[in-house]
Amino acid sequence: MLDLRATRLSERDLHALEGLVVAGGLRTDDRSRLSASAGAAYIDLARLRRGDAPELADAVVEPSTSGEVESLLQWADRERVAVVPRSGGTSVVGGVDPLENGHRAVIVASVRRLSHPGVVRPEQRTATFEAGTLGPEVEAQLRRHGLTLGHYPQSFERSAVGGWLAALSFGQASTRYHTPADRLVGFTIATPRGMVRWDRGGRPPDGPDPGALVPGSEGTLGILVDATLRVELLPQATRWGAALFSTWEAGTAAVRRLVSTSPLPAVVRLSDGSETDLTLAESGWEAGGRFEFLRRILSGLLGFRSAGARMASLLVVSYEGTPREVRLGSRFLDSVRKEYGAAKLRQSIGRAWERSRFRTPYLRDDLVEAGWFVETFETYVPWSHVAVVARAGREAVRTWADRRAIRAYVGAHLSHSVAEGTSLYFTVIAPQKTGEEEVAWQEFKRETAEAVVGAGGTVTHHHGIGRYHRPWVQRSWPAWRLEGLKALKARWDPNDIMNPGKLLPEA
Amino acid sequence: MLDLRATRLSERDLHALEGLVVAGGLRTDDRSRLSASAGAAYIDLARLRRGDAPELADAVVEPSTSGEVESLLQWADRERVAVVPRSGGTSVVGGVDPLENGHRAVIVASVRRLSHPGVVRPEQRTATFEAGTLGPEVEAQLRRHGLTLGHYPQSFERSAVGGWLAALSFGQASTRYHTPADRLVGFTIATPRGMVRWDRGGRPPDGPDPGALVPGSEGTLGILVDATLRVELLPQATRWGAALFSTWEAGTAAVRRLVSTSPLPAVVRLSDGSETDLTLAESGWEAGGRFEFLRRILSGLLGFRSAGARMASLLVVSYEGTPREVRLGSRFLDSVRKEYGAAKLRQSIGRAWERSRFRTPYLRDDLVEAGWFVETFETYVPWSHVAVVARAGREAVRTWADRRAIRAYVGAHLSHSVAEGTSLYFTVIAPQKTGEEEVAWQEFKRETAEAVVGAGGTVTHHHGIGRYHRPWVQRSWPAWRLEGLKALKARWDPNDIMNPGKLLPEA
Repeated sequence: MLDLRATRLSERDLHALEGLVVAGGLRTDDRSRLSASAGAAYIDLARLRRGDAPELADAVVEPSTSGEVESLLQWADRERVAVVPRSGGTSVVGGVDPLENGHRAVIVASVRRLSHPGVVRPEQRTATFEAGTLGPEVEAQLRRHGLTLGHYPQSFERSAVGGWLAALSFGQASTRYHTPADRLVGFTIATPRGMVRWDRGGRPPDGPDPGALVPGSEGTLGILVDATLRVELLPQATRWGAALFSTWEAGTAAVRRLVSTSPLPAVVRLSDGSETDLTLAESGWEAGGRFEFLRRILSGLLGFRSAGARMASLLVVSYEGTPREVRLGSRFLDSVRKEYGAAKLRQSIGRAWERSRFRTPYLRDDLVEAGWFVETFETYVPWSHVAVVARAGREAVRTWADRRAIRAYVGAHLSHSVAEGTSLYFTVIAPQKTGEEEVAWQEFKRETAEAVVGAGGTVTHHHGIGRYHRPWVQRSWPAWRLEGLKALKARWDPNDIMNPGKLLPEA
Repeated sequence: MLDLRATRLSERDLHALEGLVVAGGLRTDDRSRLSASAGAAYIDLARLRRGDAPELADAVVEPSTSGEVESLLQWADRERVAVVPRSGGTSVVGGVDPLENGHRAVIVASVRRLSHPGVVRPEQRTATFEAGTLGPEVEAQLRRHGLTLGHYPQSFERSAVGGWLAALSFGQASTRYHTPADRLVGFTIATPRGMVRWDRGGRPPDGPDPGALVPGSEGTLGILVDATLRVELLPQATRWGAALFSTWEAGTAAVRRLVSTSPLPAVVRLSDGSETDLTLAESGWEAGGRFEFLRRILSGLLGFRSAGARMASLLVVSYEGTPREVRLGSRFLDSVRKEYGAAKLRQSIGRAWERSRFRTPYLRDDLVEAGWFVETFETYVPWSHVAVVARAGREAVRTWADRRAIRAYVGAHLSHSVAEGTSLYFTVIAPQKTGEEEVAWQEFKRETAEAVVGAGGTVTHHHGIGRYHRPWVQRSWPAWRLEGLKALKARWDPNDIMNPGKLLPEA
């Protein structure tokens, strides 16, 4: 058993908190506090594995109604206790780290009980869900009405509506379905200074509305209680396509073509050479089971070449919608594939990718548990900068690995591509010496971020800002962006109890 | 000739301004100053008719490049001269009134020369237009590429991109095409403290972005230079439909059905009894010419009953899109019409309305010129409140007319309807005693606004806030909305030179 610091909340505090939520809604046991104190970055898992918790919540509170959320924030504001909102807890940027930042204690406010059945309005093509509703629950409720949100982040099974909006989540099919924030037409947010109901569906805006600043605010303004989202008809048809390009450059040009014309694909994902090897190997997973696959990766690792850009590149694409849209899309994919001289692969490659797409996080957990370093970083680049940013990212990893005298696997892919540019996503796997996790990871985060930002990419595409990306936000945001947000913060959270130490630079 | 106050700008000021814009870009003659000092509300026209200009620009400046706009605002900021941005100048809420608000002078910055050919990107379905580009120019440029913005405000021929975004304009086909602000993916705004380029196309947002507060800011933050908008494929087919409902209530229920299911109509407009009479009479306009129609209205006015709600209601609807969408829509319209027992009218009624829809403002100008009071007011109401707000609006006009011992025509229609609610739009025509225009209009604005807001409507649907709606905005906005906006204002326009006296309450 771990030897954890006791809660800093007094008997009086705990008694007050108990009165604010229904029975079972307050937990102070070590296990609950520990598991609510970590996100899902590599370093979170590595620390948990070592039994290390540099920051620890003093309590976990789980309100089950908006009224309970409201009372909780009033209490915390009065008592100057920091509050960290948490839905799925899958942040990879330290967005749910329980920092007290000068306050006397910090509590995690989990919204997982705020997941009552939503309200689906098929005629209006909107649906309202509570913040704690997980991906599969959202889709199951919509599917009964022949609808879909089309939002499939890799964390689909473990992340929830509140976190999607707080961190501006993208799903794998974002080229067709955009993002939950793009689909937002209304929300309720509980702030330390009261409940705010915002509605941009129906009622036209009478002037500019700072409510537009709530999506992406990462819990620094309040706790999102519910959200109303535009939804889509369930696609009548889906078709997967896969192709192998002889170079990454040819594949990149083809992807750019595919996302510049209607009908737009839903999923579009181009792997570099290293990731292509891995993905194609993954077909063995289904047959041989998870550990057989794990063994393959690990044994193959030393053999991986790092010059992924020069190897064959796998493209996986899906089209969804009416049969006509899907037909048109597939035909266009075929013509683009031929134009760039790519080999056509069987549809099942795409379907295999689809079936396994939510398993990667679990696989990652197993690898970290076995002592490996596994981390990702991602950036947005305009099309003109894809090659230079990809090179910069790979070189940063190579330099980092060389200094540590290890060999690292680096795979990259393009996804979430739009007409103007694309996300570029790197996955890194390397051996990790026990005891050096912290320093290795700190250097890795800093050096890869510097590399992609220096080459013309952004510090994040869809993982948010949280705690770890703050330094680069401070550098890349113009001052007026901060002013607008700080004014709202001063109004809703004047004592800075909401998720302190995240998103916004120090006052 | 009018006897107008001379410009308050010094020789030195005028010399400086001349150096900032190309030849012909600075005008200080009376005629230019007068015509740039009025919007298009009834009171603007009535004042011009009387030769009365309570506020007068000290100069009209017409920059023709974004660089000229930038220099102009730097000069005005340094010199503490107020700047009123103007594109089409069709504001009916005093949004372009040249108020100096404590500054030593006020200039109107017209963007009408900022109307160079736009950049249309058919593959990306976006187009960038300069702020001074008028409605017909926007559509002509898009049409060449088989595209449309679908934005047809009644002011289509006289209003421009900058004003549409500044005042959150709605077009008659908004049920299908939404609004330019909804379609905005990027813009350039010149502020007194520099140029700001905003782009939400492609690059994902890294956190909340106060740039979202620019649409609807009504020139109080800076001068919009250009805007990039999502556009649509030109519809392959269009079909008009018209029906006559025996009651306004039945028509209202039918409209609600029509806008709650796909395919959505483009135009949907339900006239009350009074407006139905007028619209049907309008078919005579085409034959007999404008003045014959005018004569009919004026001679018929005394005979109009004011209980519009109890008479037959005309519904005009259009469907646009693929032939299949149009077919589905028309079939749905037919079934809803039958369900509510409405008579089917010939398609030509709809087409006649379409042909004449941009002429109403000119007709209004003629009526005012002939000494009549003609004004409109509009509100947004949730469906549950349509009847009570319609009654309140009509009663307010009746009370106003009774007190003035005149008979007034009041017509109303529903338009811009969405699943949640609808715009309710009133048109009022009455005889007007010369010399009493000002007091009659002031009372009219105040009493009708109080009535609709008191009954549960908003003070505006799509005419903006400007100068005349400010008192109600102050009452209906929560304080945090103002804070967020003021923070941006403090950053971009710290000396409050940008369109002072509009939108925002006094500091």
